[in-house]
Amino acid sequence: MGKKTMISMAVVRRLPKYYRYLGELLRNDVERISSKELSERIGFTASQIRQDLNNFGDFGQQGYGYNVRALYEEIGKILGLNKNYNTVIVGAGNIGQAVANYTNFERLGFHLVGIFDRNPKLIGISIRDKVIQDVDNLEEFLKNNHVDIGIICVPKEQAQKIADIFVKCGIKAIWNFAPTDLNVPDDVIVENVHLSESLLTLSYRLNEAELFKEKIGR
Amino acid sequence: MGKKTMISMAVVRRLPKYYRYLGELLRNDVERISSKELSERIGFTASQIRQDLNNFGDFGQQGYGYNVRALYEEIGKILGLNKNYNTVIVGAGNIGQAVANYTNFERLGFHLVGIFDRNPKLIGISIRDKVIQDVDNLEEFLKNNHVDIGIICVPKEQAQKIADIFVKCGIKAIWNFAPTDLNVPDDVIVENVHLSESLLTLSYRLNEAELFKEKIGR
Repeated sequence: MGKKTMISMAVVRRLPKYYRYLGELLRNDVERISSKELSERIGFTASQIRQDLNNFGDFGQQGYGYNVRALYEEIGKILGLNKNYNTVIVGAGNIGQAVANYTNFERLGFHLVGIFDRNPKLIGISIRDKVIQDVDNLEEFLKNNHVDIGIICVPKEQAQKIADIFVKCGIKAIWNFAPTDLNVPDDVIVENVHLSESLLTLSYRLNEAELFKEKIGR
Repeated sequence: MGKKTMISMAVVRRLPKYYRYLGELLRNDVERISSKELSERIGFTASQIRQDLNNFGDFGQQGYGYNVRALYEEIGKILGLNKNYNTVIVGAGNIGQAVANYTNFERLGFHLVGIFDRNPKLIGISIRDKVIQDVDNLEEFLKNNHVDIGIICVPKEQAQKIADIFVKCGIKAIWNFAPTDLNVPDDVIVENVHLSESLLTLSYRLNEAELFKEKIGR
């Protein structure tokens, strides 16, 4: 199932949202903010915000609130954004190309160093400044280049094979867009983006009221 | 913040995973499964599975376990997959094209009826069998066509404007890929896919051990 977190995933998943909101405040030249104001903007309760941040240190000042820049930078460090990461994308279809073209990731410190596919029509084409390489060269590439994060954008039938190559070559973090769960050792982190599951959550929510009306009506 | 669910989102987000695993069991001709076996495959505890499903009815049989096909079909209904949905995509960049080309969504009952962009170089091009239309025609299109789900794949600066058009035209469900939170009335559902937040969760997890080692070392 991959590596577990020390802090609950519910808290961890809120951190990037704090970071995004604080970044917007900074761009709007807001220097400080009370937990109440932050709470109103971000939509979590003030006590939840305080609890979340207390996991990582003591950030607010009684009667002053949060220093926006300091908190933004601290959360950036907590998220590991004071470092750089080399990434490879395997699968240069629509999703792979979308991820490759998302320049915001570069700005955050995630550097695409290689992109791979098995389709001869794609191999040799450039995305941004990267030439799509034959996936048969992936293992060799990973042996010769330091890569922190492997990104899987292949169909689900091929995803485990790619994950196995990543693991064999010492990659400790996988961002998986294939609609399947990967088997990896406990020291490897997998973060899934399952688009179908997101869409089915939406259709569930569209039908929820009706679902329970029917049940009550039985 | 959009519509709240009656069942907790943590439960709702597990439902598509049950559906996916049961679909795989069905394709492998498995007719029944104990909650223990299902638990081992899916990685949730047997008691969690029972609790989750109990929200929606009484599915397992003591000593028999779950009938795979029956449970698959029931969860499909719970997820609203016994219905069809018309969708439009606004933003025909990489992500919009990836979503448009994901034929699995059609198979699940999500039918793409229109795709829109503001880029003159994209307008008029076909994706699958759909011609990309000028986003200036979106409102008119929504007045003349029944659309259940609006999909936002534009940059964040334009996302709220598109959401406002969706809301004005009576769309009750928005699938949002723009890295921003949308303001919508309480009867509108928003499901976000925030790729940056997913990536930052990954970098957090890569650094977590070091983060707490430093804190303890202080």
